[in-house]
Amino acid sequence: MLNHPTADLSRTFAALADPTRRAILARLEREEKVSISALAEPFAIKLPAVMKHLDVLADAGLITRSKQGRTVDVRLFPEPLRQATAWLERYERFWSPRLDRLAAHAENKEAEMRRKNK
Amino acid sequence: MLNHPTADLSRTFAALADPTRRAILARLEREEKVSISALAEPFAIKLPAVMKHLDVLADAGLITRSKQGRTVDVRLFPEPLRQATAWLERYERFWSPRLDRLAAHAENKEAEMRRKNK
Repeated sequence: MLNHPTADLSRTFAALADPTRRAILARLEREEKVSISALAEPFAIKLPAVMKHLDVLADAGLITRSKQGRTVDVRLFPEPLRQATAWLERYERFWSPRLDRLAAHAENKEAEMRRKNK
Repeated sequence: MLNHPTADLSRTFAALADPTRRAILARLEREEKVSISALAEPFAIKLPAVMKHLDVLADAGLITRSKQGRTVDVRLFPEPLRQATAWLERYERFWSPRLDRLAAHAENKEAEMRRKNK
């Protein structure tokens, strides 16, 4: 998995492209571990459908599952989300006025330096 | 489009789940506008395949296309990326030690208050 960062990023974004999977991740952000039956409870879909979503999330490395007696606990594994966020960060200047101002400031400084060096 | 924020987010993440589409967006981050032929040039895939990727990006509201004589210029429309970043931000505390410290600080303050109020 670690050998294919591009494939990972594709798998992460594909896993995030579904509202049920995003809702599962959002719940795992609030609660450290949740059993599969508790995870499935708020959804109108059947347990096997939830299990399929959990498979997609596990394949993308976004969750871990561990058996505790007769229940399976699910936990968030946030590393792929960090990578996805890092990919999106390069676009931040489009909506962050602070970063925009920093960029403008850097450009002005550069222009000033060029003038001085003439 | 604006009526279905959840569908939008799904469409945005689905659009990002492909390395060619991410490479196109990355180029449009560096250059304000790029013609379709110039966009297609670095890829080993044929022009119609690139056009299909551009359709997916346009359907997700991530690019705009405008005809200039015989060429079509493509531009980034960053708003869906801002929404995707906003969705991912809630997980930031998992990798940002600063946010983690802030949370710990808030918890300590809370515990302190509880002690005082006893």
